[in-house]
Amino acid sequence: MATLNRRKFFKAAGAGGAAMAAAGIAAPAIAQSAPELKWRMTASWPKSLDTLYGGAEAFAKYVSEATDGKFQIQVFAAGEIVPGLQATEAVGAGTVEMCHTAPYYMWGKDPTFALGCATPFGLNTRMQQSWWNEGGGEKLMNEFYAKHNVFDLYAGNTTAQMGGWFRKELNTPDDLKGVKMRIAGFAGAVMAKVGMVPQQIAGGDIYPALEKGTIDAAEWVGPYDDEKLGFYKVAKYYYYPGWWEGGAMIHIHVNKEKWEGLSAHYKAVLRAAAAQSAILLIGKYDALNPQAVKRLVANGTQLRPFSEGILDVCFKAANDVYAEISAKNEDFKKVWESIKAFRGDQYLWVQVAENTYDTYMMIQQRKKTL
Amino acid sequence: MATLNRRKFFKAAGAGGAAMAAAGIAAPAIAQSAPELKWRMTASWPKSLDTLYGGAEAFAKYVSEATDGKFQIQVFAAGEIVPGLQATEAVGAGTVEMCHTAPYYMWGKDPTFALGCATPFGLNTRMQQSWWNEGGGEKLMNEFYAKHNVFDLYAGNTTAQMGGWFRKELNTPDDLKGVKMRIAGFAGAVMAKVGMVPQQIAGGDIYPALEKGTIDAAEWVGPYDDEKLGFYKVAKYYYYPGWWEGGAMIHIHVNKEKWEGLSAHYKAVLRAAAAQSAILLIGKYDALNPQAVKRLVANGTQLRPFSEGILDVCFKAANDVYAEISAKNEDFKKVWESIKAFRGDQYLWVQVAENTYDTYMMIQQRKKTL
Repeated sequence: MATLNRRKFFKAAGAGGAAMAAAGIAAPAIAQSAPELKWRMTASWPKSLDTLYGGAEAFAKYVSEATDGKFQIQVFAAGEIVPGLQATEAVGAGTVEMCHTAPYYMWGKDPTFALGCATPFGLNTRMQQSWWNEGGGEKLMNEFYAKHNVFDLYAGNTTAQMGGWFRKELNTPDDLKGVKMRIAGFAGAVMAKVGMVPQQIAGGDIYPALEKGTIDAAEWVGPYDDEKLGFYKVAKYYYYPGWWEGGAMIHIHVNKEKWEGLSAHYKAVLRAAAAQSAILLIGKYDALNPQAVKRLVANGTQLRPFSEGILDVCFKAANDVYAEISAKNEDFKKVWESIKAFRGDQYLWVQVAENTYDTYMMIQQRKKTL
Repeated sequence: MATLNRRKFFKAAGAGGAAMAAAGIAAPAIAQSAPELKWRMTASWPKSLDTLYGGAEAFAKYVSEATDGKFQIQVFAAGEIVPGLQATEAVGAGTVEMCHTAPYYMWGKDPTFALGCATPFGLNTRMQQSWWNEGGGEKLMNEFYAKHNVFDLYAGNTTAQMGGWFRKELNTPDDLKGVKMRIAGFAGAVMAKVGMVPQQIAGGDIYPALEKGTIDAAEWVGPYDDEKLGFYKVAKYYYYPGWWEGGAMIHIHVNKEKWEGLSAHYKAVLRAAAAQSAILLIGKYDALNPQAVKRLVANGTQLRPFSEGILDVCFKAANDVYAEISAKNEDFKKVWESIKAFRGDQYLWVQVAENTYDTYMMIQQRKKTL
């Protein structure tokens, strides 16, 4: 049987299965559980970001392998069929079955989206993963996502991000005043409160804006991804940490009806493959960033921590933004309260075994005894 | 068709498939890829450890769901069919198809096993995961495991462990001399070098030994698991961190021939389900430990960090043990060199964004502003 005909046959069989399901008629067990499917997944990333785009591709590969090739997902880069920032909306509308995205891109529509991704002074990577799976995060966020017609699968994290590239040094909170920075969403709202001028600029336009001095600063992700965009050539100071992204969760959004139409078997495969891609993505960032930061420093980049004074005014401003949004958005309030309670416990416990261990090891690293 | 007959039918079909594969004759595609299988997995844990035993059970559930019930794995607690510490050997011998274990239990047979689990002053939880997937860990360890007839799947971590329960305070390295501590494997060898007296005692016998004063100290895992064993009733001081377990990787071992006999489809399902169970296990420890440590402190437990002086002598002793074993064991040397190089880079990079973020948040936790 030629590939084309085989595809047509299965497409027809799939449509028939859906019609039978709608009419409440049971199709043969094997056809219900493992039909041949061909879905499209739009990513919010260009192919050049091999970390994030690679996470989407790995997910599709894992699904194919775990279904013996029956469930095929074709991955598209940002802009190929859907603009990167509109991925979730396209899934909700049914234009594509799935997307691989950072939900805070939907912040403008409802800030609650950002809580399923990263917000200022939130949880770190491992805490987010635990909150999602064991702290009620998945349930709370999927209740919210249902209103936007999507179902969410956790698919990893960028790990703690850097604070971005600055053309001048920042020492005190006063140095923040008037700094034009490329930053989006929630963090931009906080920065506006401390006197900065947040600018929304698409990925490809950041470098020329920073080079010409149209903006004074820009943030992207971390050493490995940022190096590719070349920012180190036009801004000398690389600040840390990205206090607005202690960890940015990456998610797969599935059109809600499409998700609900899947067999329990296929739902289980998607869950497992998403988990596998999450481990891959976090592991990649952890493995690639150390080499990248060493290369950047060798190329003249100056690493600078934000001063405690700067972090303090930003922390206060972030709490004001949380309070303002919570006062007018019930969904946001409910999820934020859950994260906040979890955060307090996590940052108590992490001080005991985990951080004491890491601190001793960091001391050895500085002594060059590792 | 009755269940029993259906099972018999598939069992017969499966056996036939194996015979055909051995003879190089292609069976119909569907029979090769998704036969009905019923495997046994022995765990190194009692059922009461709902974290670890729960990880094994979750894995079996995920596999069943992702194969539409065709691949069934029955989980057995330690001692039900195989003693907990002999799980890997039973898998290698083919007594059971799989086990869920901490490979350092095999330290006595070859210390290289411990490198795939936890060794003193090694990688933390996230670093281990990255080393395993992106730093060559999986490949190196599976080359070694092949000699013991097992194939390994990563299945999570206990997270940084506590240093254990002590009846007396320890302030200087001299206070370690003569302390009889329940500890196994690699850490015991290091402790012997600093004057402690390591004791190998099975899980159930630790509490009475500590109560009677037969031993002065005992370590197990962390707050949530330790609380169940009641140590806080008989030893007041709870030290941290467990410098011998910055993160103890948990693994699933599969009999090598059984693994190689699986279809690519089933191998993919096992890999994905193991990843999913890894996220579950780490998330559980992270979510449960904060509550447990608060309850322990409320019950009178005194948290104590090991002093830097104590950590320094243990670090030096650990390096001596690494050198001694590396000098006589090529497999160990090869894997340890890989971990060591990875560790140096990780503890450089973690000082930048990740730890600076966490440190600021820990400061806020102490100020009660979270």
